Amino acid sequence: MRKLACFFALLLSISSYAQDAAAVKSQVAHAIQELRDFIAIPNDALNADDIDDNILWLKRKFGERGFNTAVLETENLPLFFAAMPMEDNKPTLLIYMHFDGQSVEPSKWNQPNPYQTVLKKPVADGFETVSFDALNDDIDYDWRLFGRSTSDDKGPIVMFLNAIDLLKKDGKEIPFNLKVILDGEEEKSSKPLPQAVKQYRELLEADFLVIADGPIHASGSPTVVYGCRGITTMTLTTYGPIKPQHSGHYGNYAPNPGFQLAQLLAGMKDTDGRVTIPGYYDGIVLDDDIMEVLKSVPDSDVEIAEKLQFKTSEKVGGYYQESLQYPSLNIRGLGSGWVGPKRRTIVPESATAELDLRLVPESDGNRLKKLVRDYITKQGYHVLDHVPSKLERMRYDKIVTVEEGSVTDAFRTDLDNKYGTFLVETLKSTFDQEVVRFRIMGGTVPISPFINELKIPAFIVPMVNPDNNQHSPNENLKIGQLAYGIQSLYSILSTPTP
Amino acid sequence: MRKLACFFALLLSISSYAQDAAAVKSQVAHAIQELRDFIAIPNDALNADDIDDNILWLKRKFGERGFNTAVLETENLPLFFAAMPMEDNKPTLLIYMHFDGQSVEPSKWNQPNPYQTVLKKPVADGFETVSFDALNDDIDYDWRLFGRSTSDDKGPIVMFLNAIDLLKKDGKEIPFNLKVILDGEEEKSSKPLPQAVKQYRELLEADFLVIADGPIHASGSPTVVYGCRGITTMTLTTYGPIKPQHSGHYGNYAPNPGFQLAQLLAGMKDTDGRVTIPGYYDGIVLDDDIMEVLKSVPDSDVEIAEKLQFKTSEKVGGYYQESLQYPSLNIRGLGSGWVGPKRRTIVPESATAELDLRLVPESDGNRLKKLVRDYITKQGYHVLDHVPSKLERMRYDKIVTVEEGSVTDAFRTDLDNKYGTFLVETLKSTFDQEVVRFRIMGGTVPISPFINELKIPAFIVPMVNPDNNQHSPNENLKIGQLAYGIQSLYSILSTPTP
Repeated sequence: MRKLACFFALLLSISSYAQDAAAVKSQVAHAIQELRDFIAIPNDALNADDIDDNILWLKRKFGERGFNTAVLETENLPLFFAAMPMEDNKPTLLIYMHFDGQSVEPSKWNQPNPYQTVLKKPVADGFETVSFDALNDDIDYDWRLFGRSTSDDKGPIVMFLNAIDLLKKDGKEIPFNLKVILDGEEEKSSKPLPQAVKQYRELLEADFLVIADGPIHASGSPTVVYGCRGITTMTLTTYGPIKPQHSGHYGNYAPNPGFQLAQLLAGMKDTDGRVTIPGYYDGIVLDDDIMEVLKSVPDSDVEIAEKLQFKTSEKVGGYYQESLQYPSLNIRGLGSGWVGPKRRTIVPESATAELDLRLVPESDGNRLKKLVRDYITKQGYHVLDHVPSKLERMRYDKIVTVEEGSVTDAFRTDLDNKYGTFLVETLKSTFDQEVVRFRIMGGTVPISPFINELKIPAFIVPMVNPDNNQHSPNENLKIGQLAYGIQSLYSILSTPTP
Repeated sequence: MRKLACFFALLLSISSYAQDAAAVKSQVAHAIQELRDFIAIPNDALNADDIDDNILWLKRKFGERGFNTAVLETENLPLFFAAMPMEDNKPTLLIYMHFDGQSVEPSKWNQPNPYQTVLKKPVADGFETVSFDALNDDIDYDWRLFGRSTSDDKGPIVMFLNAIDLLKKDGKEIPFNLKVILDGEEEKSSKPLPQAVKQYRELLEADFLVIADGPIHASGSPTVVYGCRGITTMTLTTYGPIKPQHSGHYGNYAPNPGFQLAQLLAGMKDTDGRVTIPGYYDGIVLDDDIMEVLKSVPDSDVEIAEKLQFKTSEKVGGYYQESLQYPSLNIRGLGSGWVGPKRRTIVPESATAELDLRLVPESDGNRLKKLVRDYITKQGYHVLDHVPSKLERMRYDKIVTVEEGSVTDAFRTDLDNKYGTFLVETLKSTFDQEVVRFRIMGGTVPISPFINELKIPAFIVPMVNPDNNQHSPNENLKIGQLAYGIQSLYSILSTPTP
């Protein structure tokens, strides 16, 4: 027995958390069954009944694993909560995942029913369906499971459940108090979450938060994300004649809202894409340590440019990761009159620009929106928050209606946070691979307000393949990533606390 | 007889072309019947059978009035031609009208069938249907005929036919060789017309051309139009990533096509709406005589601003009529990504501006388009006439695809042309009213190429009410304008040639 223990100690010292490949594969087989079962319960967040059915399934599955479970009522749909019995001397880890999914359009899927998981293997020109019986011989980690939420985000929930199983089989003790919060409205912006923190603060209290959602880095390396940009939006509308006018009768007489809008937008950025509105980038400092982490991300700016087919990127940062450390100002939409086959020779009545502003912790969304509004005012425009009345139209030469969207703040955990280091080191040892560390991701996660309300260090530990067609038809999960997730969570949940 | 002749001479000296009001009204009653009959033949230019049915009707009606008629075959639909027997010593007047109409959407009309004329009288909140029997008592000139092409342009054809009737009744001799060309594709851009001039030059030869189409000036005064602006179009497209990208992942990294387009457009005009592209307004000289005519048009810039609801017009000209003497540069459409409820947080793959350029005789359309292209090149853009290939995208930082529309030239007859003076003086005497002279109209007429090909002085002499809902549902003709047209044509066709 001692000899065996020594052997295990030796093994651990080489790769502390290596799990037996056969045991993992056997657990993966179990996880596939469980995931198929879970996917079969539709989970469109727009349908409250769907969400209830999923909660019943979760209650059973977490209950079977010895969790105490609770359904937390909110103003919207309920949240699902599960926890292992607490011990005072352990740090508490809260894990966040979600079980709702985007709506499906079955006709756009290459399978009859997006809620009936299909097994496929890669072939030269795509994927080919394989019978699940083929898994009885061997499980090929390159094969994939196709179905809604296989990756986003039921897959990670099943990985978690099966990591727990494997830990139990191996008799591992979990050195954390373990809490799990499962969201049923992530795809609808997770509205109830921040409020739930106020209502259920004690239940949700933890030392750190791990979010198991989203894909790993494109390189396929283990990934830990320390933050996400926030977002807010603005809609700017300029005005021409009250109704569209014949461009012969009134072209170069009636004010043209398109030119007004163009002139307004043109001055907001230089031709290299840098925002020129004073103060927009205030407060952002990237020291050498930060730059080192940013540069360590194995992105290739050349590959991105090749993939997206442009010669030169905007010059907000010197390279991709650096650019994400700044707030963005993006024209996501322009509209005036008609373009294409429907175009008509008119002076349009208005022109609209839809902007989104991605936020970083230094850039408060309301502050940035005020800077944009101030800039517009400085250009001689009268800023309104409504469609102008006739009186206002006759009174002011240049009018812009500015509608403002709500603000979702960014979150960012310090790169030297001990729990972050723990996660990175654990994954590094488990897979014997460098871990990609994102200081901040470009996108926005709806749980940012939840994180900022909880006020604890938070990390996204993604589990699924980058090419999973998240939110789209033919969403899928590589079986290898199912193994990856089980192994990751096994290691995290069995490694001595930092 | 001599006494009577003297009396008529006296009458003529007071108001040379005054017609007996009762005789006109009786002719109007006849014209209403004839117009109802004509309207009842559908005339959608998109339907060749419709056009043939109309030609049969025209053949009969012109034949009955002693015209020789011919159907001129063209590459597209045939044209209808009619002429009085020629006499060498008379100048030749060619009259252009058209008998095709815009398509109809019956559900949008306040009557069951747009081809079944309905009689309506004005009431407080619009119009009320009246039985045609009501006309037996008296004809109210404020009542209106509703139906497709009542105004545009079957009404004027019927006015012409009935003016001929009245001239015959009064035993008037027509001091012109009279030719009539009737277009069956005006609403489809009159494509066959310029070619027809080449093919049927001798038939169409004339000393001047009168176009009886369009509405009189909003003031209700008799109107003669000496020219129309031409038009050409350009479509500019800038490019971002090859496919729309998540604005979180690639906002402020992937080039934003909306900002590129805004910056490109912004510099084409100053903030007062004047085109700043060098040479755009070259060659335009407005001397005092011209300015006097422009100022004599009873437009009110204040009223236009009030109606269109803006404080200040663009400053291309000092006032409305002056602005029309210049070419325009109009953004008729802008499109990129989505605006409104469909908006999505993306970096769009492209942004498009639809431009139209209204032309004056000094501004050749191809020259102006070249100026715009040169301007774009000067801003550092690589101009393509096609969607860029990957190679081109990777090679050039800033790319604009410029698609160019065809050019319809402007036409403008000199203000001191003797036939123009003849028309103005004749209308002035007939109605004892100042005649509104438009040096050039803002809009473009599809017969411009026909006029420029014919190389004869051309004048638009509009006949119908300005509020006729041309091209729209509920097109109508004020019965008073039916009388106006009959009287105008009667006078023009019975006044000694200049």
